[in-house]
Parts: sequence; structure tokens; C-alpha cells
Amino acid sequence: MTDFNRHPSSYHHWQLKIDGDIAHLRMNVDPNFPFKPGYELKLNSYDLGVDMELCDAVQRLRFEHPEVKVVVVGSAQERAFCAGANIWMLAESTHPFKVNFCKYTNETRLSLEDASRNSGLKAICAVNAACAGGGYELALACDEIHLVNDNNSAVSLPEVPLLGVLPGTGGLTRLVDKRKVRRDRADVFCTMAEGMRGKKAVAWSLVDAIWPKSQFAEKVQTRAKELAATLPTKGTKGIELAPIHGKKTDNGYSYTHVQVVIDAAARTATVTVNGPQGAQPKNGAEYEKAGSSAWALQCYRELDDALLQLRFDHEEVGLLVLKTRGDRAALLQVEKDLFANRSHWLCNEILLQMARTLRRWDLMARSMYALVDADACCAGAFFEMTIGCDRVYALDDDKVQFVVGPLSAGALPMSHGHTRLQNRFLAQPEHGQKLAAEMPTFTAQDADEQGLCTYLLDPVDWDDDVRIALEERASLSPDALTGMEASLRFAGSENCDSKIFGRLSAWQNWIFTRPNATGDEGALTRYGAPESAKFDWRRT
Amino acid sequence: MTDFNRHPSSYHHWQLKIDGDIAHLRMNVDPNFPFKPGYELKLNSYDLGVDMELCDAVQRLRFEHPEVKVVVVGSAQERAFCAGANIWMLAESTHPFKVNFCKYTNETRLSLEDASRNSGLKAICAVNAACAGGGYELALACDEIHLVNDNNSAVSLPEVPLLGVLPGTGGLTRLVDKRKVRRDRADVFCTMAEGMRGKKAVAWSLVDAIWPKSQFAEKVQTRAKELAATLPTKGTKGIELAPIHGKKTDNGYSYTHVQVVIDAAARTATVTVNGPQGAQPKNGAEYEKAGSSAWALQCYRELDDALLQLRFDHEEVGLLVLKTRGDRAALLQVEKDLFANRSHWLCNEILLQMARTLRRWDLMARSMYALVDADACCAGAFFEMTIGCDRVYALDDDKVQFVVGPLSAGALPMSHGHTRLQNRFLAQPEHGQKLAAEMPTFTAQDADEQGLCTYLLDPVDWDDDVRIALEERASLSPDALTGMEASLRFAGSENCDSKIFGRLSAWQNWIFTRPNATGDEGALTRYGAPESAKFDWRRT
Repeated sequence: MTDFNRHPSSYHHWQLKIDGDIAHLRMNVDPNFPFKPGYELKLNSYDLGVDMELCDAVQRLRFEHPEVKVVVVGSAQERAFCAGANIWMLAESTHPFKVNFCKYTNETRLSLEDASRNSGLKAICAVNAACAGGGYELALACDEIHLVNDNNSAVSLPEVPLLGVLPGTGGLTRLVDKRKVRRDRADVFCTMAEGMRGKKAVAWSLVDAIWPKSQFAEKVQTRAKELAATLPTKGTKGIELAPIHGKKTDNGYSYTHVQVVIDAAARTATVTVNGPQGAQPKNGAEYEKAGSSAWALQCYRELDDALLQLRFDHEEVGLLVLKTRGDRAALLQVEKDLFANRSHWLCNEILLQMARTLRRWDLMARSMYALVDADACCAGAFFEMTIGCDRVYALDDDKVQFVVGPLSAGALPMSHGHTRLQNRFLAQPEHGQKLAAEMPTFTAQDADEQGLCTYLLDPVDWDDDVRIALEERASLSPDALTGMEASLRFAGSENCDSKIFGRLSAWQNWIFTRPNATGDEGALTRYGAPESAKFDWRRT
Repeated sequence: MTDFNRHPSSYHHWQLKIDGDIAHLRMNVDPNFPFKPGYELKLNSYDLGVDMELCDAVQRLRFEHPEVKVVVVGSAQERAFCAGANIWMLAESTHPFKVNFCKYTNETRLSLEDASRNSGLKAICAVNAACAGGGYELALACDEIHLVNDNNSAVSLPEVPLLGVLPGTGGLTRLVDKRKVRRDRADVFCTMAEGMRGKKAVAWSLVDAIWPKSQFAEKVQTRAKELAATLPTKGTKGIELAPIHGKKTDNGYSYTHVQVVIDAAARTATVTVNGPQGAQPKNGAEYEKAGSSAWALQCYRELDDALLQLRFDHEEVGLLVLKTRGDRAALLQVEKDLFANRSHWLCNEILLQMARTLRRWDLMARSMYALVDADACCAGAFFEMTIGCDRVYALDDDKVQFVVGPLSAGALPMSHGHTRLQNRFLAQPEHGQKLAAEMPTFTAQDADEQGLCTYLLDPVDWDDDVRIALEERASLSPDALTGMEASLRFAGSENCDSKIFGRLSAWQNWIFTRPNATGDEGALTRYGAPESAKFDWRRT
């Protein structure tokens, strides 16, 4: 099992220091501690292990340090802010790993932006030295970019000229969509291996400010204080995030509230999520007391971990089967209490964690079928997970209920900003609105009539029909399904976040498979070698 | 030179019949007349040649038959409405050809939708028999889909289950974004090789109406008349579209108003567009009299043809260099007159043709640099072409002018619905608005200050700087450039049309290169063979 747990006390690659309402997060990658042996992490280049620590740091800031209003993202190395994703690691990786690595780093950067948008935690990037590729993509995910003004320190996206691939961690999209850099300037910038620095970088909106080396630390600190002073205090004492410990079982993983059972021959994984048991916190103070073991936080952190295990370690599992379990009333009560107390920083953070986990769910490049059987707990956020699946199979049984909860109206948006009800009922927006507003409870038959089921199955047919459905799905081309699902899951208008996953990632997927990048004579393969790359010049 | 000219009198695959304000366009593909030898076009399956005739028919309806308000798209074959793109043709094609073929068919279908939206020409699809894949994608591009209700005739998108590729002519996107089919139903439909028919097809919004076979023709005709009766008469007599004849030169093509010079070694093509010469029509009546030889129509039809030649026959040309020539005042006068007379059907059609050609320009998967030199005519729609390029190189010379014309405010939208000024100035929307409203004339220096140039070059540097710029661009990975340009050219929100080209096409590009589709044991390769496909099951 891959251990995604990290802790600041044992970081290899980052330093996290809290100084009142300002945090300093400094990259200091240990070149001799790669995630997998075989390459050196020079010049603050990163791999999955480095990004897991970054992801952990952002989580710690959100949950453990509500007093922090501004995080300054910097580097502890003189020679490099960050050289981006490690090229040797990329060149050695399989295609699915490369794609999953990019997706994970994208999600980490989006969590930083989510914290800025929704948690009152702003990020300042202090670029003290060369900042290339994924390093600059990290900077783009911050609210402000400050660059040291010397003769060496530039920001750059050198992937196209040097490696024949795209800046795939949101760089291209964030450049024109988030920072709104003029498209022709973006074009110039993305084809310059050496990048840009000084006044021109400011004029082109590639960075927000430049400072002389001698004043850099002080100016950034002043700006951080200034920015922090404009932000409200949301909390003074955080909770501790305990590690997530899944147990490997004979055929999957078992957590406290989440179980994964893998059928390797069938290429399916059944993901079971369980609702709350026993008394749950009612308000912010009680959540602070309960800490990270409260069901609402623990369950979605476990699910997050389980989804990552599936992505990285079970590439051949093509179909996830969702089962929900537990007491619907208890689950809905938790969501009502969280929603009523969402002005409390911790309730807000827990809701945001649920939303991020559900977005990770939407972005699983696997088919997803929900089974709503007699024991199902198809309510609230579990209902969201259910309609987040490609299909919903419901048992026509009196015990089955579908319950829309208080979070379906907007607290758990998809990547493209729509709610799952909006996305589902694009043809009848008023219907989606009505369900979100009235929070009805439906029988299976009513749910079917209301458009919430794909199939309503008779109990005598259930076992056979479900078995055949799973077999059929698992027999189809995995590539065609990935492209189809990515196209059908996100209906309606797109935004910056969904363009990163939709447009940009799809292009990068294509480029990663092309000989011009990854063939024996491709640019990624030949990087650093004496011979330069050889291209098939045909344009596609 | 590929001859893209077609004429109803010599169609091999379609029948076009005009009956008052209703046109009947019937597919009747000659299986023995493929575009290239080597495959049979059975069951009304199509290839590039078939789609060229469809494209021609839509153009004829728009320009030659303004009296037509409704086109009924049907089939003259009993056994098939249309079986979609020919699989043997696809399996034999190169990757760049497949991608360009899909792009061309997408553009043809978008021109049908453009006619519905902007020309008062509605399309009814009369699905008289089996309608699969690209056949159904054509149906989706129509305003209404009528299906015969018998035991055989279904609509289907069988690409995923049968071929391991996507319905790549907009099918997936149109399903959920245009027809707003519920995403789980779309998922079911797209994985069913047999498709759907009867009442369920109506209930799922896959078709708009079903009729018994005995009444089918009559019911469709009645509906066409009913629909036509709701639409205003726009014109009574069209103009004849003369064929476009480019001459092959030693190193390119020469048309009346457009020249293409290819430097095969440098992998560049210089595209020169020339403004109007001599007297031009001033209003609708004069345009009707002038016919298709009027500069405003001829020039953009020629450019359209030139761009298609480059796409299909010059795959290795990676960089287009735009040169504009002519008298700025004369060009702007033509645009002013067209815009002032846009309520006249022909002036409207000419403006729409210009807009479509410019969208084809934006969608060239080649780098594009504009050279604004002392002889340039950087005005009006030529200005739009200029800022549609990835970069604008301007000469710092008194003779250079940039002139914003009356069409920059919205008459020539990009695929994602934004104007090129909005797209360029996403960071300063008021600046883009001001330029569109005030239609200023700028010197090169002013244009540079106003954000319209990428580089302003001194005359002494011009030759060297331009030469180096072209060489540098042509040296980069063609795949990385395609992905980068597709990402940077379209900033801001996306719509159905741009999702087809962005999200969907990028996924299809990836899938086309994957062994699961096109490898020796891939699904596309093995279609129809006794052994079924073998997949690498790893999900990406």
C-alpha cells in the first residue's frame, strides 16, 4: 500500500514554519530521497513524494493552523526556487503513472487555490531563484508571485522547447485564464527555454512584483503582513490531523469508514462508504474537541486515500462499484449541523474537504457504477457520490430511499463549478433547483421517475442484471471509456479548473504517447543526451 | 491539388432537390466511388469525398437558395440512413489524416448549425433507417430529428463498444451539451452498439419524434412545412457559386486574391491575402448582381480552400506566415457596406462566410505568425486574421497602420463565442470594448502600446529577426506546439462548439494513437475480423 501520510516533523523536502498569522513553506528537496530509486532530485525538482509533502502542508495549514492567513511559498535553496517535475522520473515512468502524477499535482495546486477562495488562506510565492516548469506552475497557483530581481532568476515554462511536452500541471490554462496573460505573450513565454525576469516579467503579468536580492526577504515579509492584516481571523487553535491508516486485506483495503474490495480478474473495485455511527459533534466547538476522528472528516480523508491507492496501484481496475451504507438520518443530521455551522472555520474546512474528495471522485479515470440496494445509504453527500457515477442501478424495493441533503445546492461543486444536480438536469434546470431546495426523500420508484436512477431493477433480476452490467463495462476499450467519460461527465460551460482537466490534460495525454516526446529519439527521452531529438514533422 | 469544388449536378453521393421553401437533401452514397481507392462505401457510410458534397450542399442552400427555409436531411437508401464514417477508410488512414478528416466534418456540421442560428435555415433530419456513428452525429447537428418507428431503425453511437474510439464528430458533446441528454443516459447510449429506437429514443431526447413507416415521409413533410411557415422569407433568388480555382505554382498555390508560397525545407507557408481592387458592390442588390466573384465572398472562399489544401496536403508545414496586402480604405469600405446592409440576406451570408473562414483559420493546427510590414493591409477582417495569429511581428515604419473595422465588435466570433479582441484582452475587457467601439487607426508604435503587436521591429533588424523567429518556431516539437496553441488561443469560458474542438478532439487524438484502437490487435484495426481486439487494460 502506498503511504500517502506525511508529517511536517519528518518532511524530507519542505520546511513548514508558523510565525503568528504567517506561515513559511520552503522547498528544500533532498536530491537523495526520490520517491522511487533511480533518479536524483536536483535543483528542487519534484516527484510524487515531494508533492505528497506539499499536499500535506496545505492540509495542515487548513486544519491545524486556522490562525494562519498567509502562506509564503519559497525555497530554502539558493540556486533554485524549483526546477519543476523531475525529468528523469518522467522519462522513466509509464504512461498511466505520468498522467496520474500530473492529475495529483493539479489537484494539489487546486487545493491551494481552493484555500484562497474559500478558507481565507492566501498564498504568496517568493521566487528567490530560478523557477521553471512545474515550479512556475506552483507559483501560478498562488495569489501573488514575487520574483527576486537579479541576473539569474527567471520564471519559465520550458517544456515545449526543451522536452517536447506541455506544462501539464495547469500552466498553460492558468497563464491565459487565471492570470489573463495576453495570448501572444503567453505563446512567446512558453517557447522560451530561458524564461523571463525583471520588469518585463511584471509588465507581462507573469509575476506581480520584483525586488532586489538584498531586500527580497524583507519586502515579501512586509507584503505578507500587509495582506494578512486585510484578512479576518477565522480561528486560533486547530485540530491535529491523525494519519490515515488503511489496512491491506487479501483483496483490497479496509479503513474505519471505507472499504475497497478488488476483483482483479473482473477488473472491478467495490468501494463501500459507511455513514456515521454513534454521537457526532453538533457544532464548531464540538468538532474542535473531536478532532480529526470525527466521522465527517475521517470518512472523506479515508475515501481520498482509497481513491489515490486505486489510481496509482491498480491501473487495471477499470470499474468502480459504489456501495453506500449507514443510517440516512444520522448522516443527514451531520450534514445539517455542518451546514448550519459553516461560518465556523472548522465546519467550513470539513465541508471543503468533502467537496474536494468528491471532485477527486468525479475525476477518477475509471467507469463508476452506483448500486443502490436495500442496505444503501443514498443520502446527502453519499447521494452526490451516487449521481456522480456514470450510472445508478437502483433496486425496486421498499427499503430503498434517495434523500437529497443540504449540501446538494452548492456546497459540493464539481470541477466546472456546476452542482451535480445542475449537471444532471441541464435540460430542466428548474427540476434540479427544486430538488436542491426541497431536499425530498424518494422511494426507488419515485427516484426513478424524478430522473435519479439509470436502471430500476426488480429484486429477482438484480443479481444477474448487475453482474452482466459489470461484465459488459469491463470488456470495453479502457482508452475509449476514459475519453467518453471525461466528455459526458462534465456537461455545460467550462471554467479554468475544468479546462485544466479537460482540454489541457487531454492534449498532454496525447503528447505523452507520441514518439516525438517519448519515443527513443523523442525530446523527453533525449533530454540531456548529446544528440538532440528527432521529430516526425507532420502536424496533427 | 485536392479539388474541394463540388456541384449538385455531379454529386456522387447526395441528391439535392428544391421544392419551394423546402429543400430535400438525400444521402445516396455510391459505394464504388470512394475518395481514395481501397474501400467500399457501403450502407451510406462516408469519407472525405462524401462530406465535401455535404459541405457544398449547405453552401449552395445558403447562397443559391435563399428561398429555402427548411432543409430535410434524409437518405435515398432503404437499408440505411447513414452508417457513419467508413471504418476501412479510417483504419487505413494516417493519424494526421484522421484528425483532419474529423475536423473537417466537425466544421461542416457546425456550418449547418450556423445556418440555423444565423441564416434562418432550419434542418430536419429524417432518419428513415439505421443511423449510426457519424450518421447520428449529422442528425445531432440538425434542429430536429425524426425517426421512423419500425423494428430495425435505431440511432446509435457504437464507436466505443465496436471500434474502441470516440464518436469524434461532436457526438459526445452535442449529446450532453446541445440536446442536454442526461449524462447517465448518454453513458448507456454510447456503450450500446445496437443503439436506441421507438418511444425510449424520444423519452431520452435522442430524437424529437417517431412516426410509423407508412406515414413517415408525409409526417416529416408536414412538419417541414409547418416549420417553414414560422420563418420569414429572406430572399427569393440566390447567386451562383462559381468554383474556386487555385493554380498550382512551383512552390504553392495562386488564387485571385490569395497566394500560398511553401518553403518545404523551412516547413513554412506564407499566406498572402489581398484586399479589394476596383469598384465593389455597395448594397445587397449590387451584391446579388455581382454574384460570387465579388471580392468579399471570393477572397474568403479562396482562403478557405487554401487552408484546406494546407491541412490535407502539407502536413509537414508547421508554420503559417500571414501577409496582408491591399488598400486599407477600400477594404474597410467593403466591410462598412456589408455591415450596414447585414439585414439583406446576401450581405449577411457573406459576413457569415467570413466568420467561418476566420474560425477555420483559428483552428489551423499550425503555428501562425503575422508579419505587418510596410505593404501590409492590417485592417478590418485582415486585422482579425492578424491578431488571430499566435504572434504579430510589426515593422516600426510610418507606412504601417493597424485599423480596427466594424466587424471586430462581434460579427466574426471565434469558436468559443468570444471576439478576438475580447480573447486578447481578457485582463482588460474595457480596452477590448473601446477598440471595438471606436474603430481606431494606429501607427505601428501606437498599436504596440495598445497591445496589438507581439514585437515591434526596427527596419534594420526586420529581415534577420523575422528569419530567426521562423527558424526557431519551426524547430520545436510539432505535437507540443499543437497542444500548446490549442490551449493558449482560446482563453476564457468555453461553449459547446469549442468543447468539440478542445476537449473532445484532444481525447480522440489521444485515442487514435493508442494501440488499443489502432495497434495490430486494436479494436479499430480488428473491426470485422474474426478475432476480437486485445486491450492493454491499464486505465489512464
